[in-house]
Amino acid sequence: MTLDAVDTPALAIDLGVVRANVAAMAALARERGVALRPHAKTHKLPQVARMQLDAGAVGLTVAKLGEAEVLADAGVDDLLIAYPLVGELKLARLVALARRVPRLAVAVDAVAVAEGISGALAAAADGLEVGVRIEVDSGMHRLGVAPSSDELVELARAVDALPGLRLEGVMTHEGHAYQSDSEQELARAAAAACDVMVASAEAIRAAGIDCPVVSMGSTATARFAAGHPGVTEIRPGTYVFNDRSQVAHGSAAEGDLAAAVIATVVSRPSAEVACVDAGAKALTSDRMIVRDAAADHGTVAPGGAAWTAVGATARAAGWPVARASEEHGLIAVPAGGELAVGERLALVPNHICPAVNLFDAVTVIERGRVIDRWPVAARGRMT
Amino acid sequence: MTLDAVDTPALAIDLGVVRANVAAMAALARERGVALRPHAKTHKLPQVARMQLDAGAVGLTVAKLGEAEVLADAGVDDLLIAYPLVGELKLARLVALARRVPRLAVAVDAVAVAEGISGALAAAADGLEVGVRIEVDSGMHRLGVAPSSDELVELARAVDALPGLRLEGVMTHEGHAYQSDSEQELARAAAAACDVMVASAEAIRAAGIDCPVVSMGSTATARFAAGHPGVTEIRPGTYVFNDRSQVAHGSAAEGDLAAAVIATVVSRPSAEVACVDAGAKALTSDRMIVRDAAADHGTVAPGGAAWTAVGATARAAGWPVARASEEHGLIAVPAGGELAVGERLALVPNHICPAVNLFDAVTVIERGRVIDRWPVAARGRMT
Repeated sequence: MTLDAVDTPALAIDLGVVRANVAAMAALARERGVALRPHAKTHKLPQVARMQLDAGAVGLTVAKLGEAEVLADAGVDDLLIAYPLVGELKLARLVALARRVPRLAVAVDAVAVAEGISGALAAAADGLEVGVRIEVDSGMHRLGVAPSSDELVELARAVDALPGLRLEGVMTHEGHAYQSDSEQELARAAAAACDVMVASAEAIRAAGIDCPVVSMGSTATARFAAGHPGVTEIRPGTYVFNDRSQVAHGSAAEGDLAAAVIATVVSRPSAEVACVDAGAKALTSDRMIVRDAAADHGTVAPGGAAWTAVGATARAAGWPVARASEEHGLIAVPAGGELAVGERLALVPNHICPAVNLFDAVTVIERGRVIDRWPVAARGRMT
Repeated sequence: MTLDAVDTPALAIDLGVVRANVAAMAALARERGVALRPHAKTHKLPQVARMQLDAGAVGLTVAKLGEAEVLADAGVDDLLIAYPLVGELKLARLVALARRVPRLAVAVDAVAVAEGISGALAAAADGLEVGVRIEVDSGMHRLGVAPSSDELVELARAVDALPGLRLEGVMTHEGHAYQSDSEQELARAAAAACDVMVASAEAIRAAGIDCPVVSMGSTATARFAAGHPGVTEIRPGTYVFNDRSQVAHGSAAEGDLAAAVIATVVSRPSAEVACVDAGAKALTSDRMIVRDAAADHGTVAPGGAAWTAVGATARAAGWPVARASEEHGLIAVPAGGELAVGERLALVPNHICPAVNLFDAVTVIERGRVIDRWPVAARGRMT
C-alpha cells in the first residue's frame, strides 16, 4: 500500500533516506577517525538504533533513563545517559540498568551528583561501575561546568576518586552554534567549542588524571567537530531524519529529509490560506533554530522523492505553515496557488525531534510503499 | 503517598481544584442559561469528561475522531467533533461512531465537506443522522465561513437539504480574543464575536432555515459569552486545569491552577540559573498567549495550595522558566534566590492543553496525597 491508505496526520519516515543518512554520518566518523555515538532522542526507535550500531556507531546517547531502558530491552549494550541523574528513584533505576548494560555512562556537572551516583552503586555492593562524562559548558550556557576551570579539575579529581565511577572524559552540547547565520560562522562556532573542550580535557590531564574522551554533540557541527584535533567522539541526533532547521544550516540537503508529517487540506477559508489537519500537536510550536527565521511552523516538503510524490506536495513545495494552533496548520498559499480540500501534503517540521515525540508510531515507507509501522517505543519515557 | 514518591518530570492534577473548576463553569452556564459543552482536548481524560457531564454539561466537544472514539468507549453519548472531517478513512469511522453515539455532531465550513459526510451516511443506508454546526470565522481567521455572508446561507441551505445531516446551528472558536491586552479589550472582543455569531444565525433563520444553536468556544471569553443575548452554548476547554495564559487573561485565579509539571533541579550552573528536568518535551514550546508576553516557557507555580507545598515551590513562586531545550528548563533565579540541586518545583505551563498531550499519564492528587494515576486515554489519537 502507499501513504494514501494511511490516515492523517501521520508521521512517515523514508527508510531509504534514513539508511543513507545513517551511512553518511558513519562514513564521516570513520574517515575522520572519531567515534560516533548518535543521540537516540530524535528517533526513539530501537530499529533505528540498531541500524546506527550496524553502521559502526560505538553506542547510543539518550537523555532519559526510560529511553536507556527501552534500548537496553532491545539489546543495546553501550549507552550514555547524557543527563545529570538526581534523586533516589532515578539512582535505583540506574543501578538496575548498570547490572544489565555492559557499557553504561552518565553525564555529571557537579560533585554532589557524582557522589549520589557513586553512593547508589556502592550501596548495591555488586562491584558495579559506570563511566562518567563531565559536562562542560562550551558556550550554550544551559548546564555544565566552566571550561578549563578549577571547578572542572576538582570535579574530575572527585569523579576519579569516587568508587564505582570511571572518568571517561568530557562532553558538551554546543547548541549555541545553531545561532550562526552562515556556514563560516557555524564553522567558527564549532571550532571554538571544540577548542574549549580539548583544552578542558588537557586541563584535567595536566592534573594527572586520565581523560581519554572529548565528545561533541550536534548535527549541525558534526562535520566540523569530526576531525578537529583532539576531538574523539561526536553525538549527532537529528541527522538520522533531518528537518527544516538542518537544511537551513547546510547540514542536510533537501534530499536528506527522511521524515515528514503527512497532512490533509481540510479547509480553504480564503485564496491565501489552506488549513491542514496538522497543527502544533503534530508539528510542535518549535520555531526554526536559525536566527531571524520566519516565525512559522514548518513548510510543505521542498524535496525528497518520497515526499514530493505525496498528493499536491510537488505543486506546493516550500509553502510555509505560517500559523498553527493545536490541530490546525495554516499554509500560506501564494497568488495563483492551487490547493483543494482533500489534497494531501508532506510537511517538514522546523525541528523533528519534538515532533517525533508527539506520535505513538511512525509509518515506514520504502520506494514509495508503506512497509511497516513502528511504535515510537521510547516515546513518553519522561523520567 | 505524596508527590515526593513520584519521579520527575510528572504531570500532576489536583482533583479538588479540578472539581471546583468544573463546578464553577457549570454554575456559570446554568446561571446564565446557556448549554455547556466542554472541549475535551485539554484533558483527554474520560474521568474528567464524566465529572463535566455529572456537573451538568450537555455533552463534550473534541477535535479528533480518535478522541470521540475514546469518549464513546467511556459511555459519553453526546459528542461534537469540532473539526471538518475529510477523506474516506475518516468518514468510515464517523459512520461507525454515528451507529453507537446517540447524539453526534460535526463541524463543517464548506459544502463539499458536508456532501462527503452526507454521502457516507447515506451509503451506510441505516437512516443514520448527525448534527451539523456551521463553523463561522468570527475573527480568528483560521477556518470557517465569513459571518452573515451569502456563502454562509448557501452552506446552511445545502446542509438543510442533504440527507443524514441535521443543521443544529453555528459555532466558532474566538481564539483571536487571546490577543487582548486588558479585561476591557477581552470583553469587547468576546462581545463582538458573539454579535457576529448571533447575526450569522439570524441570517440563516431569515432564509427560513432552523438554526437553534449559537456556540462560542474559549475559556477566556466564556464569562462574557455566557449570557450574551442570542448565545446558546459555550465550549471552554482549558478552564478545567487552567494555565499561565488563563491567569494572565483573568479567566482564572492562581488558586484555580489545577495542573502542574513537577520537576527536579538537576544543575545550578550559575547563581542566576537553575536547570530543571522539564524542558520543551514536558512544557512545550508554546509561548504565553498574551500579546507582548515574555518569550519564556512557564513559571514556578505562583499559587495553589497543592503546588506551593511541592519542594521549594513556595520560595521560588513566579520565577520564570526563561529558556527551554528539549529536556532542560532554565529557571531565572533572582539575586539572592536559593534553589539547590535535588529540590523539586511545581511548574505552570503557558498552555496546558499541548502539555497534557505530552504525557502518557497524569498523577492525581487530592489534599496533597497521590490517590491515582490516570492514563491520558485520548492522547496520541492523532486522527
